[in-house]
Amino acid sequence: MGCELCEGEGGSILWRDDFCRVVRPVVPEYPGLLRVILRRHVAEMTDLAPAERRRLMETVFACEQALRSLFRPDKVNLASLGNQVPHLHWHVIARHRDDAHFPNPIWSPGLRTAAPSPAVSDQALREALERVLGVKAA
Amino acid sequence: MGCELCEGEGGSILWRDDFCRVVRPVVPEYPGLLRVILRRHVAEMTDLAPAERRRLMETVFACEQALRSLFRPDKVNLASLGNQVPHLHWHVIARHRDDAHFPNPIWSPGLRTAAPSPAVSDQALREALERVLGVKAA
Repeated sequence: MGCELCEGEGGSILWRDDFCRVVRPVVPEYPGLLRVILRRHVAEMTDLAPAERRRLMETVFACEQALRSLFRPDKVNLASLGNQVPHLHWHVIARHRDDAHFPNPIWSPGLRTAAPSPAVSDQALREALERVLGVKAA
Repeated sequence: MGCELCEGEGGSILWRDDFCRVVRPVVPEYPGLLRVILRRHVAEMTDLAPAERRRLMETVFACEQALRSLFRPDKVNLASLGNQVPHLHWHVIARHRDDAHFPNPIWSPGLRTAAPSPAVSDQALREALERVLGVKAA
């Protein structure tokens, strides 16, 4: 009955404030996959007040910007699904033409072995996020 | 070389202004699937100015609200992918526990025959969108 995003971090923490956190889960095929996770246990964007929706999306777009600068993706994918874990979280995914599923969504059957991605450290992502979002105490 | 979202509407038009349109494509398994399509041919959210990103997301959230009121979904899924058609468009999808893919994304392999969904007309969706977004000339 527990919620894994209330009870665990969901990946390496790259940035956080009192409202949400940005994590990088271990997904070998997608090193450029970040998640933005709301701190509160809420299911839908329209359960949030309009100013909160904007605040969460600003963090999502900061992730997109950081991924674009570091991974030079062919496309960025954004998704808030939550069918399995109904606790608001956004997937922000750097996609490349030679990744495992392109041009299909990463949740579709795999098409090929992914080509190696650029090696990007957590620290490089942290710095890129802080340039957009500012530094926050952990 | 053409873009199908520049050249075609992409579904029945439910709402539009000079910035974006809301359409309902024919997807028999998902009558509660709407798309919000930017008028301009732009690939990524961070290609837009911050005020434009907010404007597009407000339309996405209006769709979520309309779908919640008319389909009573178990979850709403939001996604901007665009790997095949790199022209900004958001999928806003009412999901039900007995739909064809739940709890997986709709792009994953089907799990079952979808249970019949509530019959919701285009007109009911138009009226629900206009309640949130106001009436706009077509």
